Amino acid sequence: MAIGGANISKNMTWQLKKLKKIQAKNSILVEGLPGMGNVGKIAVDFMIENLNAEKVLEITSHHFPHCVFVNEDNLVELPKIEIYQKNLKDKTLFLLAGDIQPLDEISCYEFCEMLLGFLIEHKGKEIITLGGIGQQKIPDNPKVFCTGNTKSIIKQYAAKELHTNIHGVVGPIIGVTGLLVGLAEQKNIPAIALLAETYSHPAHLGIKEAREILKLLSKKLKLDLDLNQLNFEIEEIEKSKKKIDEIKKIGAFGKIKRREPTDYIG
Amino acid sequence: MAIGGANISKNMTWQLKKLKKIQAKNSILVEGLPGMGNVGKIAVDFMIENLNAEKVLEITSHHFPHCVFVNEDNLVELPKIEIYQKNLKDKTLFLLAGDIQPLDEISCYEFCEMLLGFLIEHKGKEIITLGGIGQQKIPDNPKVFCTGNTKSIIKQYAAKELHTNIHGVVGPIIGVTGLLVGLAEQKNIPAIALLAETYSHPAHLGIKEAREILKLLSKKLKLDLDLNQLNFEIEEIEKSKKKIDEIKKIGAFGKIKRREPTDYIG
Amino acid sequence: MAIGGANISKNMTWQLKKLKKIQAKNSILVEGLPGMGNVGKIAVDFMIENLNAEKVLEITSHHFPHCVFVNEDNLVELPKIEIYQKNLKDKTLFLLAGDIQPLDEISCYEFCEMLLGFLIEHKGKEIITLGGIGQQKIPDNPKVFCTGNTKSIIKQYAAKELHTNIHGVVGPIIGVTGLLVGLAEQKNIPAIALLAETYSHPAHLGIKEAREILKLLSKKLKLDLDLNQLNFEIEEIEKSKKKIDEIKKIGAFGKIKRREPTDYIG
Amino acid sequence: MAIGGANISKNMTWQLKKLKKIQAKNSILVEGLPGMGNVGKIAVDFMIENLNAEKVLEITSHHFPHCVFVNEDNLVELPKIEIYQKNLKDKTLFLLAGDIQPLDEISCYEFCEMLLGFLIEHKGKEIITLGGIGQQKIPDNPKVFCTGNTKSIIKQYAAKELHTNIHGVVGPIIGVTGLLVGLAEQKNIPAIALLAETYSHPAHLGIKEAREILKLLSKKLKLDLDLNQLNFEIEEIEKSKKKIDEIKKIGAFGKIKRREPTDYIG
Repeated sequence: MAIGGANISKNMTWQLKKLKKIQAKNSILVEGLPGMGNVGKIAVDFMIENLNAEKVLEITSHHFPHCVFVNEDNLVELPKIEIYQKNLKDKTLFLLAGDIQPLDEISCYEFCEMLLGFLIEHKGKEIITLGGIGQQKIPDNPKVFCTGNTKSIIKQYAAKELHTNIHGVVGPIIGVTGLLVGLAEQKNIPAIALLAETYSHPAHLGIKEAREILKLLSKKLKLDLDLNQLNFEIEEIEKSKKKIDEIKKIGAFGKIKRREPTDYIG
Repeated sequence: MAIGGANISKNMTWQLKKLKKIQAKNSILVEGLPGMGNVGKIAVDFMIENLNAEKVLEITSHHFPHCVFVNEDNLVELPKIEIYQKNLKDKTLFLLAGDIQPLDEISCYEFCEMLLGFLIEHKGKEIITLGGIGQQKIPDNPKVFCTGNTKSIIKQYAAKELHTNIHGVVGPIIGVTGLLVGLAEQKNIPAIALLAETYSHPAHLGIKEAREILKLLSKKLKLDLDLNQLNFEIEEIEKSKKKIDEIKKIGAFGKIKRREPTDYIG
Repeated sequence: MAIGGANISKNMTWQLKKLKKIQAKNSILVEGLPGMGNVGKIAVDFMIENLNAEKVLEITSHHFPHCVFVNEDNLVELPKIEIYQKNLKDKTLFLLAGDIQPLDEISCYEFCEMLLGFLIEHKGKEIITLGGIGQQKIPDNPKVFCTGNTKSIIKQYAAKELHTNIHGVVGPIIGVTGLLVGLAEQKNIPAIALLAETYSHPAHLGIKEAREILKLLSKKLKLDLDLNQLNFEIEEIEKSKKKIDEIKKIGAFGKIKRREPTDYIG
Repeated sequence: MAIGGANISKNMTWQLKKLKKIQAKNSILVEGLPGMGNVGKIAVDFMIENLNAEKVLEITSHHFPHCVFVNEDNLVELPKIEIYQKNLKDKTLFLLAGDIQPLDEISCYEFCEMLLGFLIEHKGKEIITLGGIGQQKIPDNPKVFCTGNTKSIIKQYAAKELHTNIHGVVGPIIGVTGLLVGLAEQKNIPAIALLAETYSHPAHLGIKEAREILKLLSKKLKLDLDLNQLNFEIEEIEKSKKKIDEIKKIGAFGKIKRREPTDYIG
């Protein structure tokens, strides 16, 4: 009874569930996963809501935390990263959202390679990753910086309010926000990272910072986002913030053998 | 002499030893591995004993602790997870018990996928996982909560003493108790988690809490369990409790290179 | 240029270098790797020396520390585990020695499976593992305990000075000393572990304890070991002890990223 | 849509990008990656500059940190290890440089095996690794020691200023500097490690120490290096030093789940 061998092949460590047939042209992927100030996550979650984008893909993985969440319907949910689609006049927008990032170095690389495979399959022309630059206090007027994998994409997004003199301002850009831009170069996909100054306190929600990024994206991608809505989103964001905190706690003890008595259910 | 290559293939990281031919109908898997208050483990170990269930499968794994235990016959035993079978009138009960859980995130996913494979092969219709919700003190009258992967299974187990308003009460449900329910959804197997309030102290044995879960299961699955027996089981449970503590200690230093002088034999 | 793919296949994580054609009958493997009080290592290293056993196999592995040692000839040496052979009248003795144990749980399982493959290939009939039981102070008259994977092997080695009532005396037996006995059962190879009481201080060298084990082995296997020689071995042992300490230090920071400035060369 | 499986095969964890057709004879590989006092890195980076060597290979890997750096052109760069080539009269010099070492034990072994594959493919005859021996204070007149995998290569590099009595002076030589020498022996490639005494403080830049090694190499390999230039290199070195420090910081929290708020961007 070779159950084990058949079910746990290497290929099954990443599960992609397509929710509908995807048709796309001139696709742009916008990434916003949890991170510094959760700036990227707030921005992309808002875009999904405001653009009424449609969920087309769910990603679960053996490299995500080994737990489930209980949602508002009192049902369990696996940790997931999702891709939403919005067709614009001349291009397709893919929005990458989720409550987690892959757990370690290797799976972060694998995840980005997989995303690039998805994008190439769906006529991807460009990648935009969103994130925050952590600072010691809450910035009054958060600046947005950018870097990318080619000079031309940086020129393409040039704007008075977008700072390109980022060398020396930031250290290494860790996780999907940075790695996806670096690996995209190997596939000849232009990619840019938009990074807003934010407060590096774990409890901080960089809504104002996300708004600066959204202003830029709205103009450059002609999205016509209703940014007044953003304030109404705070409650929703705080909920997902709580979820992120819980996941961070899991991360803190990590493996089951290090479980602390007061911190888990199971 | 290609000894290495032949013997350590990926497929051999999980070993399933079938102890007899398994015949089953309308199978229900009930999981109870070590965890918070050991509520799940106590409940399932009691069911195995009281129902006189028969061991049908032993699972050993490269993802379990790299040690052996010395049993009452002064012989060694590998760390194991076992499945016991009990045929009821209209259905088959599989009871999942053991002294350990898989060591890390990936192997917890693999283990659950493997269990689902086993269950599908043996006409599995349903999964029930058991666990505890850790609290700061010993609950006088521990409530039992539930969550699941479909609304219908929650309806099916509805009872006055089973609380369904669990959202916000618990954080992420970690390990097999949670993950198995989440992954079962991907295979269209209805699954429910029964979680009793318990004391989150590592030395606590949630016998009273397990009894609340057993009452429910006895009624719903028509098991006719003799719950008066439970007190007599305390000694047996304390023995396995000691074993769990030892395993936790192993976990605490984990890899051989971190071994502390006073804590191991070998 | 697919260099990477070709050279780093899974099968290459364990390298076995046969130094000569091995001919064997009724083989017994005696294991003595570093561990508690280094009792096992001291005993097996002494046997190799005193029996003038011949090295027949060298094992290197991607699962050993990523370093080299400088030997007395000022040349580098990879971390290695070695098998020595001694032909006795009616049987072959394989002696397993080394300065390290595999780094983690999975590689410990893999290593033991590989050893079992080697033993089966070479007419293996029995396994004896050697180790220490850590205590709070130096035992004056260290007792030797045993456990095994069948009752018959324990009977076979029965002796007045060998204690079999080990249940409750020891916790889990960690690493190759325990795991090899447990996994041997799955291959139907009888295996026994001989464990001497020793002092659990990392700087302790359990020579006296090793002598107790050697006395037993000499008698039971008719080895006629010259145990008076053991004292002369102390210097040699202290050298290998120093090497073990160094390896433990490596283990302490483990990965290169955690290197402390004063502790390494490279 | 089996995107995952196709893109993340084991063979893709190491990516080698050849920048031009490589023609070589009697090749010598000189390794200088970050390490103790960064002696090796400083020496090899200087050789690349001073010899005007040409970059022929870029290595990226899933086993490198999951981040990107922002370079002076404000563009992102993946963590990389690079090989530069310099044709001398009678031999080819390959210079191995980078800002990182592989992240863990297994990937360090894999990386070295891959390098050996590269070298064999390109007529490799010899390997020289460079590193530092950490001391409690800055050495006034840093001595250079050597060890190797054969007596003959040590004889070949014999010089009044090269100390061969290294046994007992150093502990294990960790990382590529040591492992490459050890593994080269398995492929019958002579290899030597040149190790200069240096200060084991993480902020120390072992330029003076590197100079001692460079003097030796310049003479033995007839490189005619302009060592007066070395002082002018300090600024360049300090820049890469800063990058190394940043990477070490990443290493310090390692996995994304352990990120501290003030330490990263993303």
